[in-house]
Amino acid sequence: MRVYDILQKKKDRQELSTQEIQFLVNGYVDGTVADYQMSAFLMAACIQGMTRRETVDMTLAMQYSGKQMDLSGIEGRTVDKHSTGGVGDKTTLILAPALAALGAKVAKMSGRGLGHTGGTIDKLESIPGFRTEMSPAEFFAQVNQIGVCVIGQSGELAPADKKIYALRDATATVESIPLIASSIMSKKLAAGTQAIVLDVTCGSGAFMKTPQQAKELAGLMMEIGQDAGRRMAALVTNMDVPLGHAIGNMCEVREAMEVLQGGGPEDLLEVCVALGGAMWMQCSGKSLESCQKAFREVIADGSAWEKFQEMVKAQGGDLTKLGTLSDEPAGVLYAWEDGYVSEMQTEMIGKAAMVLGAGREKKEDSIDPLASLVVHHKTGEAVKQGDPLVSLYTQRQERITAALSMLREGIIIGKEPVDEPILVYEVLV
Amino acid sequence: MRVYDILQKKKDRQELSTQEIQFLVNGYVDGTVADYQMSAFLMAACIQGMTRRETVDMTLAMQYSGKQMDLSGIEGRTVDKHSTGGVGDKTTLILAPALAALGAKVAKMSGRGLGHTGGTIDKLESIPGFRTEMSPAEFFAQVNQIGVCVIGQSGELAPADKKIYALRDATATVESIPLIASSIMSKKLAAGTQAIVLDVTCGSGAFMKTPQQAKELAGLMMEIGQDAGRRMAALVTNMDVPLGHAIGNMCEVREAMEVLQGGGPEDLLEVCVALGGAMWMQCSGKSLESCQKAFREVIADGSAWEKFQEMVKAQGGDLTKLGTLSDEPAGVLYAWEDGYVSEMQTEMIGKAAMVLGAGREKKEDSIDPLASLVVHHKTGEAVKQGDPLVSLYTQRQERITAALSMLREGIIIGKEPVDEPILVYEVLV
Repeated sequence: MRVYDILQKKKDRQELSTQEIQFLVNGYVDGTVADYQMSAFLMAACIQGMTRRETVDMTLAMQYSGKQMDLSGIEGRTVDKHSTGGVGDKTTLILAPALAALGAKVAKMSGRGLGHTGGTIDKLESIPGFRTEMSPAEFFAQVNQIGVCVIGQSGELAPADKKIYALRDATATVESIPLIASSIMSKKLAAGTQAIVLDVTCGSGAFMKTPQQAKELAGLMMEIGQDAGRRMAALVTNMDVPLGHAIGNMCEVREAMEVLQGGGPEDLLEVCVALGGAMWMQCSGKSLESCQKAFREVIADGSAWEKFQEMVKAQGGDLTKLGTLSDEPAGVLYAWEDGYVSEMQTEMIGKAAMVLGAGREKKEDSIDPLASLVVHHKTGEAVKQGDPLVSLYTQRQERITAALSMLREGIIIGKEPVDEPILVYEVLV
Repeated sequence: MRVYDILQKKKDRQELSTQEIQFLVNGYVDGTVADYQMSAFLMAACIQGMTRRETVDMTLAMQYSGKQMDLSGIEGRTVDKHSTGGVGDKTTLILAPALAALGAKVAKMSGRGLGHTGGTIDKLESIPGFRTEMSPAEFFAQVNQIGVCVIGQSGELAPADKKIYALRDATATVESIPLIASSIMSKKLAAGTQAIVLDVTCGSGAFMKTPQQAKELAGLMMEIGQDAGRRMAALVTNMDVPLGHAIGNMCEVREAMEVLQGGGPEDLLEVCVALGGAMWMQCSGKSLESCQKAFREVIADGSAWEKFQEMVKAQGGDLTKLGTLSDEPAGVLYAWEDGYVSEMQTEMIGKAAMVLGAGREKKEDSIDPLASLVVHHKTGEAVKQGDPLVSLYTQRQERITAALSMLREGIIIGKEPVDEPILVYEVLV
């Protein structure tokens, strides 16, 4: 088998065999396939597409390029959730303890933020003392004991995906539904849970710009997971507005805590009910409606909040030492005229938060847990000239002008009222 | 400007600006654009195509990536010829001295063979003592003195092309008309001659499989050259059969010498008349017909043969020491039945010669100047069972079985008579 012939076939839009895809992926991991050959393949795959069968083969080849998590030592139904990325998305902080409170086993590995989207691990690390690195034995023990543990992703899972993703990022080959699906699913399958629920975001702050694209991606990933014997569900959710009001690590933890204590923004709660209901459905086998009801109950009765505190304590975190936003924001964007917030360029808002120190432009960048945005008015709300729209918090005073001008560009005030955005476009179970 | 955005545009089939193409090519030469980014671009360009304007810009960017040959020190009309590659193609050995005999200045840089096609420099080096490396001063002096000099290609011309070609060869991105055109023309423009005649081969032994594809490539290269102020002509010639009977370095020199002395195979002479006529037309400004007539005259009156001997002598070669084929071939392929040679897979025949030592699989391979094939019957000829079809000459006895089976596969004997192949499909002047 020769890489040259594989590239030629994909260039000519022919279907590759299972053996050819394995040869390519394994060769790339062991170094016999060069970077420049893999990038040529990725470009050809972006333009010419991949069949469902090729996508499944690519996923499995990447999944088996490294370790498989063996969760057989965990008693009960294991469940995982994955979001394709968003701004202000702190759902994992709510879902993980709530599902444990319902009786599921949440053995979750999460990522760090990059670009305009945040990462759960960065958020948890804003809690002083919180440990996100653990040995497998410690990880399993905590899940068995309290039902939930959230740690950082291990580089040993799907190393082929890690290497290929870095290349896609440098060669404009990120936006391909088969490549996105195989990347996500290779890691989720290797992470070993019995049930997987996917949150496929769409809109101005997400990879998928339309609900149609997002549904296509969601459907493909569900099929890959079901083929591999996992119980799958997927939701298509709206990322045309940030989720909740808080964007930034510490303040997102605080907002999640509010929801867990029965308060917090309604949109955030509703998205969590939709996702959490699907997760519990895949664990319990009960109807989606009854699972959503059960989810609301563990929030209402405080058991999810209790589980959150238990988890933080078990992982060494101290909530009494969690930071707070200063009374005086470092900057404020005020409404420049009367009207209605008619559009939010969510990616731009995420980038403004990044510029303030809440996220990373490059992997090596450091994060300021207190850097954040608080969004006071979202799409559909009426505003008057001079109303605060967004408060900015940062220690990097010199970045405020840049962040303000990004926010100014990313938010549109119109004269006509607009509908409040739909939160969940589609639930696939 | 970012490479990422350039790749994204080409992926989405958008036209790149002149600046973007320069940024890419220059960045690749200076190392700021990585191999894996350039290969992604090449794959996108292969699939999505390049406009005529983009192709011209790519050619010029590669041309100006290195030195430009300054031929202003040469008195008279300079002319160059380029073939897109063939099997048994020794036309340069005939055309260069014949054009000098006509009065043109032939300052020619030629390449080495790779894969199934041969290279003029390898052929000339089979003449003991023949020097193919010279300083520019020596090169110009010889052209001024005797009207002709053929040396090896300088790596300093179009270094971008050299680097990009190596990458295309490893990433299945060779077969693209815009990329082939810009690669050839960048070197030919940098080589500095006033007139350029292109021999675009087509058929089973060439890159271009059909006369239509070849004509498209020829037309594009002519336009690029004319844009750059050169006098251009192009011929589309047949490479569905080897040219002449001899394939191999020393024996091709001998066959060219036969033609120069008024003998040799008719197909080889006729292709030379067509090419040489067009070359002299671009130098003299006279009609194609009268130029072809003048070409036949310098062959008939011995002046081209005299010029060849002059050139060999000037470059240190000694024709009295040129090798000869042994009386006994190392192997013979005999006709396995009565009939007509109906098809020759010319690439396969070229590969059989390579396997015997006449060519290189990889650049580093060494060549045996005596390794060769002599083709006794070509497409259209009647054969009887037991007639010798091809004689094999090599010092690598162990390769004979492999070469014989390639030849057996590459030649088809049919029951019905077939027409003799057309030699020249098209003359574009």
